[in-house]
Amino acid sequence: MKLGSLRDGSLDGMPVVVSRDHATAVSARIVVANWQLALEHWSDTSPALESLYVALNKGRAEGAISLQGRVFESPLPRAYQFLDGSAYLNHAELVRKARGAEMPASFLSDPMMYQGLSDQFLGPTDDILAADEAWGIDFEAEIGVIVDRVPMGIAAKDAAAHILLVVLLNDVSLRNLIPGGVAKSFGFIHGKPASAFAPLAVTPDTLGAIWDGGKLHGPVRVDYNGECFGRTDAGKDMNFDFPALIAHAAKTRSLAAGTIIGSGTVSNRNRDAGSSCIAERRMIETIETGAPKTPFMAFGDRVRIEMVDADGQSVFGAIDQRVRQA
Amino acid sequence: MKLGSLRDGSLDGMPVVVSRDHATAVSARIVVANWQLALEHWSDTSPALESLYVALNKGRAEGAISLQGRVFESPLPRAYQFLDGSAYLNHAELVRKARGAEMPASFLSDPMMYQGLSDQFLGPTDDILAADEAWGIDFEAEIGVIVDRVPMGIAAKDAAAHILLVVLLNDVSLRNLIPGGVAKSFGFIHGKPASAFAPLAVTPDTLGAIWDGGKLHGPVRVDYNGECFGRTDAGKDMNFDFPALIAHAAKTRSLAAGTIIGSGTVSNRNRDAGSSCIAERRMIETIETGAPKTPFMAFGDRVRIEMVDADGQSVFGAIDQRVRQA
Repeated sequence: MKLGSLRDGSLDGMPVVVSRDHATAVSARIVVANWQLALEHWSDTSPALESLYVALNKGRAEGAISLQGRVFESPLPRAYQFLDGSAYLNHAELVRKARGAEMPASFLSDPMMYQGLSDQFLGPTDDILAADEAWGIDFEAEIGVIVDRVPMGIAAKDAAAHILLVVLLNDVSLRNLIPGGVAKSFGFIHGKPASAFAPLAVTPDTLGAIWDGGKLHGPVRVDYNGECFGRTDAGKDMNFDFPALIAHAAKTRSLAAGTIIGSGTVSNRNRDAGSSCIAERRMIETIETGAPKTPFMAFGDRVRIEMVDADGQSVFGAIDQRVRQA
Repeated sequence: MKLGSLRDGSLDGMPVVVSRDHATAVSARIVVANWQLALEHWSDTSPALESLYVALNKGRAEGAISLQGRVFESPLPRAYQFLDGSAYLNHAELVRKARGAEMPASFLSDPMMYQGLSDQFLGPTDDILAADEAWGIDFEAEIGVIVDRVPMGIAAKDAAAHILLVVLLNDVSLRNLIPGGVAKSFGFIHGKPASAFAPLAVTPDTLGAIWDGGKLHGPVRVDYNGECFGRTDAGKDMNFDFPALIAHAAKTRSLAAGTIIGSGTVSNRNRDAGSSCIAERRMIETIETGAPKTPFMAFGDRVRIEMVDADGQSVFGAIDQRVRQA
């Protein structure tokens, strides 16, 4: 299934089941009021949603609408929890290499993760609002999963079964505000405003061969101001897969249904693949030439993030955002 | 008004308006399904809730029930956002003094704050579950406020008007898991499991003289295993008041209605007032004798947190929790 939320003025949006080719949709309101509720009662709601998806793809869903001109919210326009990891250690290694430091050995066995903002996500085509370009505005292309209720202390081997949906996101970062937060040891508040998600959340069975139960495989296409910026493969160089990230998150707490777990910036060791965020390109520039060259985003700059499968079909729809002065 | 949520098996609980003496309550369901919705539409919902509160206090509310034997959830059993500050700098100073370090000057002008877990709070009398006593289980008595929608970039002087409710909470902390998280600069995940809130959220007007628009005044009574542990005054030595904390939180993001902002551990310079968490007592022991003496909580240990007003009346009801092995 492919699930989205159309903008309708409400905080949760209108839940729609979207056709495999992203051309049409049908309201899921005859099943459930919003996706949060569906996730809390997945075994009760998913069969009816599956029926809608099958009918829609056959062109037989009653009340189906064209998606031409419709505006999407993020699949979950808000969530009770977003825990964002940093599972591609190449990224963390480059951070340290650029400042001449070693990556601590513990990073190899213990994932990094922070509690992220989840009270209101941007829609996939919403502007990124910032008061000041000096904040160091950046994008980060990431994969995420949405889980049902996960018990505290779960083992990684049991965690994969809790993954209900897979998503693609832009974890907007304000690079120049991060050091101030980090210096206080309290993580990120100012440096991590609202993320934006690609329009569609997709079930593992619909992903098919590109989902192996723990990782998503395929190129993450990042275009910046119309030019190719990154084509990293989400399935390569991911040091902690999603079941490992879920187990890490749930060590001392259970996770509510609807919790989103992010992968952190997709990053490959192969530098020809490019980068999924400006910060990483700047680190590579620093390592290679002694100084960063690419500036962070200015007002008007545009980032587009999308994944396509082997047939060239968009998997989640596209994130396409501009930066605008608040 | 005093507002609470009774345990009814649902994730949001049953919203009830509670009488001034905490003896009776009336369901708020004739006004709104849950408190999150009420907070999103406060100007529409609060007049009807006020009418219920007035009628209840006069003994004239239809359908009023006795609260004898009823189990409360936290007022918001879950929230879309919990941002927890550390506004009593005496606490941060003691942390540093105990390890022979100076507090950075920036701490005086820029509040510490982290994004906290909010997907499911413990109820005020729920057990604190932990797998291992070696995690360093601790309580932290704090004051919090719940706001309506706050625009990005708000000034502190304009932030007080957004405070709809005041709450009392126990920010449960796993002290021995915090250094591992801090070392990675990503804040707390393992070290900060679910917090518990006192049963009642109270409107500023009902608090009366103990609320000055920015701070709550009065003793925070912390009893540990039946003995007095702390009697700190929440209005003393608070370096950043709630409007300042809200403005800090909203520097680069708007805040959704229902966002909870915590004060951090209430801490007074007067050591006769005791402490609101074990970690602070251990720091004082380290400063005074060279080593900590009081251990963190063991399975079976009990903490009780309550505020009473000048008339001896409980303001929020009591938090009363035991630690239990998960």
